[in-house]
Amino acid sequence: MSKINTISGFPEFLPKEQIFFNQCVDKIKYYFELNGFNPLETSAIERISTLIAKGGDDKEIYGIYRLSGDEENNKKELALRYDLTVPLARYVAQNYDKLTFPYRRYQIAPVWRGERAQAGRYRQFYQCDIDIIGESELSLIYDAEVPSIIYQIFRSLNIGNFTIRINNRNILKGLLLYLGINDDNITKKALRTIDKIEKISTEQFYKELSYLNIGEKSISELNEFINKKLTNDKWITYLNSLSYNETFSRGVKELEQLINYMRILGVEEKYFTIDPTIARGLDYYTGTIYETKLDEFPELGSICSGGRYENLAGSFTKKILPGVGISIGISRLITKLIEVRTDNNESSTIAPVLITMQNICRIEDYLKIGKYLRENGIKTENFLQNKKLSDQMKYANKKGFLIAIIADNYEFENNEVIVKYLLTGEQLCVPIKDLIKNINNYFRAIKLI
Amino acid sequence: MSKINTISGFPEFLPKEQIFFNQCVDKIKYYFELNGFNPLETSAIERISTLIAKGGDDKEIYGIYRLSGDEENNKKELALRYDLTVPLARYVAQNYDKLTFPYRRYQIAPVWRGERAQAGRYRQFYQCDIDIIGESELSLIYDAEVPSIIYQIFRSLNIGNFTIRINNRNILKGLLLYLGINDDNITKKALRTIDKIEKISTEQFYKELSYLNIGEKSISELNEFINKKLTNDKWITYLNSLSYNETFSRGVKELEQLINYMRILGVEEKYFTIDPTIARGLDYYTGTIYETKLDEFPELGSICSGGRYENLAGSFTKKILPGVGISIGISRLITKLIEVRTDNNESSTIAPVLITMQNICRIEDYLKIGKYLRENGIKTENFLQNKKLSDQMKYANKKGFLIAIIADNYEFENNEVIVKYLLTGEQLCVPIKDLIKNINNYFRAIKLI
Repeated sequence: MSKINTISGFPEFLPKEQIFFNQCVDKIKYYFELNGFNPLETSAIERISTLIAKGGDDKEIYGIYRLSGDEENNKKELALRYDLTVPLARYVAQNYDKLTFPYRRYQIAPVWRGERAQAGRYRQFYQCDIDIIGESELSLIYDAEVPSIIYQIFRSLNIGNFTIRINNRNILKGLLLYLGINDDNITKKALRTIDKIEKISTEQFYKELSYLNIGEKSISELNEFINKKLTNDKWITYLNSLSYNETFSRGVKELEQLINYMRILGVEEKYFTIDPTIARGLDYYTGTIYETKLDEFPELGSICSGGRYENLAGSFTKKILPGVGISIGISRLITKLIEVRTDNNESSTIAPVLITMQNICRIEDYLKIGKYLRENGIKTENFLQNKKLSDQMKYANKKGFLIAIIADNYEFENNEVIVKYLLTGEQLCVPIKDLIKNINNYFRAIKLI
Repeated sequence: MSKINTISGFPEFLPKEQIFFNQCVDKIKYYFELNGFNPLETSAIERISTLIAKGGDDKEIYGIYRLSGDEENNKKELALRYDLTVPLARYVAQNYDKLTFPYRRYQIAPVWRGERAQAGRYRQFYQCDIDIIGESELSLIYDAEVPSIIYQIFRSLNIGNFTIRINNRNILKGLLLYLGINDDNITKKALRTIDKIEKISTEQFYKELSYLNIGEKSISELNEFINKKLTNDKWITYLNSLSYNETFSRGVKELEQLINYMRILGVEEKYFTIDPTIARGLDYYTGTIYETKLDEFPELGSICSGGRYENLAGSFTKKILPGVGISIGISRLITKLIEVRTDNNESSTIAPVLITMQNICRIEDYLKIGKYLRENGIKTENFLQNKKLSDQMKYANKKGFLIAIIADNYEFENNEVIVKYLLTGEQLCVPIKDLIKNINNYFRAIKLI
């Protein structure tokens, strides 16, 4: 027999978990579309040259090859995508003439990374991305639209309190410039150290920045700045009181406007905070930056990150395509939610109604009731095995149906069925003509619909 | 710049095509769930040993490797799935103790095959599968449930007339047995030739069967049998009049019952037909077989095939798991539908409403109207670029919005907006308090909701 245990890094769900996962994805999709983002599905497979066009690291990329292909078919040019941003850039450049800008798309899809197997590291995981791409220019208001959608989604997912942390790269860049750091390479490395501040000691922070030849006084100023704990309004007042240079002031002005727009869009104050420590390791962000943490599960790190970039697809086209976007890492998020749910009574069936079958001679009647319920939009399974009713009820309870329909000659001849409500065990004789109303009323009563 | 043309065999859609594709998938998903099938998503990646466990051909399999991995990480054990059935078998065997039987799942997902690039051949394409898996036994009524769902789906997709062709492998096997063919290997090869009958000449048919050492008289009888054109009822009468052997009679009895159940389930007679030529090349079908052709697009071949198998997961478990299932090949189907649609006015936006913006000082008002519509479930995009209204209307028309909301100081001060219906060009001044009602009434009038 073949080995069939799970392959490390490629997790799969049991039915009830999968149902929950899909419900979360459906909610995310609902809010993306509600806000006018359109679906895109790029191919899972890209040219390797596309994936490393930005000079990217190829360590984590999974190439593909034909198991028994000849040379011509095994040029090893192709690989699985490792994120949804590079494919977006390639797609927009390729279809530039056919798209309407600002181009707004969402993509919810797995990506693959050849990470070393270790706890909590996935090699296949989902990303849920939205991006808005402009032609030459893109209004800053879109930078506020993005977190307002995240706010809508996270509120609807019932994941407790969360904090959208916001920053602007120009603030940190301006500050570093003010401190005498004007070498691009050193700036990048310093930003990476700043980004790690929550994970490293103050000592380590000083050490790493000293290596970059940043003077101790500068490091102290930097350390003091990023460790301030202020409210959003106090941050803006404080930042406005410093006028280090143009870069810094542009960052502050953008951040102030962004916050105003977010408030107009109804994002409640307690769900977002200015945080100058977030810098995002990725080089392509050039303005606004977002990270999102769950207050209850800080160990997950940022489960939703993104920002503004001044040119999406420079490796593929000469067109200047500024954009802003964000990515929700739902594989980690939903796996955690599944893990911690105390309520273990979720259903393993997406259909709430099971029609049992006691008498094969009456099969026509059982099938017709199923058909009738479905035609009225009620998700229904017909049990069609020749089993004892008690076995069928065990099946119904094990899978978590809410209603079992029971009937035999007597009921059919009286045009009625027994409706058994499985949460309480109560049952009721219901005329078939009232069945739809009865079921829908019950679903409304238990807030299923 | 990197090469960015499409990779042959990995097609992608433009926004309006993707919206249409997703609408079709949503319908399929709706009917799967309406009939009590639960979602499953297996990993895209399987062990190569799993994929070839049944002694399968590895020619079309795409293996994966880390681009710059060390030995340990590049054992070349893993590959992309080429269908959804093998992963199902592996999943059911692996999670046997945690599943409830009959286990009913659907999976809608891409699969990958390293085919040679040629017109119409995809190397990544979608399959939409449903299967019902029993423990040791599975009622024949489930064989009727499967095509009844396909009937519901294809009717809702508006793809014109279609024919679900039905057969039972035991009929052909019994017939071959009757004709003196009792070598399993020859039976399999003969079934493959019969399966091709529509594509090959009578001469070729005779030739291929002669190679198998089947006598000319037997081939003639076979040819005559499978070329009969009869109605479903006449087929059943005819088949019942022949009692070649037990295998044959079992097939006939099952087919007759299947047809009866399908009728009870409401599948209209004109949409299904008994067809003894369909044999399915795949060896694992052991009873009922389905194929489905679109009357308008016979060139697509069978876009929906499946059948009954007596043991799903023999390579992975000793448990006997009989099942019945079907797979819709939507990539070919939907691509064809997109190709032939004469109506080229589909929308490139999933949100029907665009809120234009003429006056940046009033940004709060524009954003608030968007928020208001969304809170009432109306998919809405806010246009946030600082552009002339005429440019915004061009954007609205190009993307295919149905309604544009227009307003400036005067309207906002009077708590109203201009609603422009873009299909006709008419416009109306609407108080904001009536806006939701107005838009929903319009959507109802044009049958959008």
